[in-house]
Amino acid sequence: MSEKLAIGIDLGGTNIMVALVADDGRIIRTSDRRTLPERGAEAVMDDMSDMVTEMVDGGGISRDDIIGLGIGTPGPLSHRDGIIYRSANLPGWKDVHIRRGLLERTGIPTILDNDANIAAFGEYWAGAGKGSRDVVAITLGTGIGSGVIAGGEMLRGHYENAAEFGHTIIHPGGRLCPCGQRGCVEQYCSPGNVAKHAMELIRQGSESSLADVLDEKGEFGMKAISEAAQAGDELSLRLWDEACYYIALSCVNIQHTYNPETLVLAGGMTKSGDFLLSRVLKHFDEQRWNLMDDAPNLRIAALGNDAGVIGAAGLAWAARNSNLFA
Amino acid sequence: MSEKLAIGIDLGGTNIMVALVADDGRIIRTSDRRTLPERGAEAVMDDMSDMVTEMVDGGGISRDDIIGLGIGTPGPLSHRDGIIYRSANLPGWKDVHIRRGLLERTGIPTILDNDANIAAFGEYWAGAGKGSRDVVAITLGTGIGSGVIAGGEMLRGHYENAAEFGHTIIHPGGRLCPCGQRGCVEQYCSPGNVAKHAMELIRQGSESSLADVLDEKGEFGMKAISEAAQAGDELSLRLWDEACYYIALSCVNIQHTYNPETLVLAGGMTKSGDFLLSRVLKHFDEQRWNLMDDAPNLRIAALGNDAGVIGAAGLAWAARNSNLFA
Repeated sequence: MSEKLAIGIDLGGTNIMVALVADDGRIIRTSDRRTLPERGAEAVMDDMSDMVTEMVDGGGISRDDIIGLGIGTPGPLSHRDGIIYRSANLPGWKDVHIRRGLLERTGIPTILDNDANIAAFGEYWAGAGKGSRDVVAITLGTGIGSGVIAGGEMLRGHYENAAEFGHTIIHPGGRLCPCGQRGCVEQYCSPGNVAKHAMELIRQGSESSLADVLDEKGEFGMKAISEAAQAGDELSLRLWDEACYYIALSCVNIQHTYNPETLVLAGGMTKSGDFLLSRVLKHFDEQRWNLMDDAPNLRIAALGNDAGVIGAAGLAWAARNSNLFA
Repeated sequence: MSEKLAIGIDLGGTNIMVALVADDGRIIRTSDRRTLPERGAEAVMDDMSDMVTEMVDGGGISRDDIIGLGIGTPGPLSHRDGIIYRSANLPGWKDVHIRRGLLERTGIPTILDNDANIAAFGEYWAGAGKGSRDVVAITLGTGIGSGVIAGGEMLRGHYENAAEFGHTIIHPGGRLCPCGQRGCVEQYCSPGNVAKHAMELIRQGSESSLADVLDEKGEFGMKAISEAAQAGDELSLRLWDEACYYIALSCVNIQHTYNPETLVLAGGMTKSGDFLLSRVLKHFDEQRWNLMDDAPNLRIAALGNDAGVIGAAGLAWAARNSNLFA
């Protein structure tokens, strides 16, 4: 009998990534294409189906050895109903029955979840959280996405909106967030928002080695702040440290809400490695309680851009093993 | 065949409450005694065993009809191992194997959980959260206790310390909490802390109708603040409203972390009824996001002091139905 495999798809606004994944999280094969979402959902589903066919049939793999297909996409969406309601990254898509659409095209039982959840599940299953049953992953990006695995199960919530950790309020009456709230934690530490804040300060006259970059290019991102901070720019160092402080406060609040064994930091900001982790850890140790020794291990994500396809495939494996593909 | 029943025990620092509970949450019979915890854990376990014997054998109920026993106690404790590590309310108790102690004395399979969890489970199973699979209950008391039921299961976390919502940080660098952190939300809205804050303000010269009470009795609690606020005392009204504002912010953060269908407010403060609920709702509607319509229903707890015994018995029923008493 040949090896059983799951298919993982990470559908983003820019790229579609497809992978064949073994039951231990090993990637056997991958392929990718541009999404071009403006073509509409039907065309993109046709593309994904073609990619699956190429990978499976073209690779000489028997359809009988494919146990299921997991797909992660931007939301809001319903895992339960297999529908993408709409998405800023998939313009024009509305109430797309993507689970049914892929099942009809490929004949493979399909499971849908959002991109933050599949990335978290990937790290839980085969990455930095491997071996723990209780894992939280936060992805530091434009905002802060998060996914929570509690007792080996994805925490979803009644409206399938659990783990919107970036929109917990850390400053009553604080900075206005596009979500309509004030003082959301992602306003204080997501790379996108920190870079925005830095550019505002420089435009208002704050001194920084990044002033020239801003003059020249019209903008910069968190990578530039990290590099300038490490080169000794004071404003950049202050903003980097402040972001690490708020990430640490988020870790404290995650400790008290979900109480995971492992807390995984993911996203582009983690490319700064120890310059991020050591500062977050310092603030975390200073800010968390000393009543009990129940702090999670903080770890940098291990799977990089593969977390999504691996996690999507992992959800397909989990669904198969729980007989949810009945 | 006669009706199957579970036993629920709510062990507090002051009282032991025991109840016989049917599989729909109905209380069949209750009894209580003083705890007198300074006698030591062995004597108190003997007492609880006697209370069970009186209730079952004395009530002419067959031992075969008792499916299990659930007990809730103050913590920290381990549900998994059935041990109370220690407790401020049970002075001198240390590493008490209470699950084993009760099983040995009564012969009834036993399950242990903490008081906040059993109260939440009671409201979920048979109270204000009945019918929902995703329920969070917060108990407004000296601090803020909370319990989370996610998809019909108690959320415990790796260190069994999930749902310590009172110690999430809402004000970076804010008021010092005895837990060692700064800015814990319970510092701003638990009845115990609001009353403490009110007494400090009055001692420092703030005008209030409660100044006389403080002079006369040396202290007052949240009940006095609620009454004075409703009678028009400005300081009390300001502090009451501020507490409601922070409770509402907690509700926003609970919405984004656990995403429950129903959020139950419990504890003595809820005796103020609509004077609490309407103000919390007003702030909640003002503070939460408008991205999605995923706000929980806010409800006042329905079971009062019975929540603990009902929830403890409910956990015994749940353990029986999942074959965890194997």
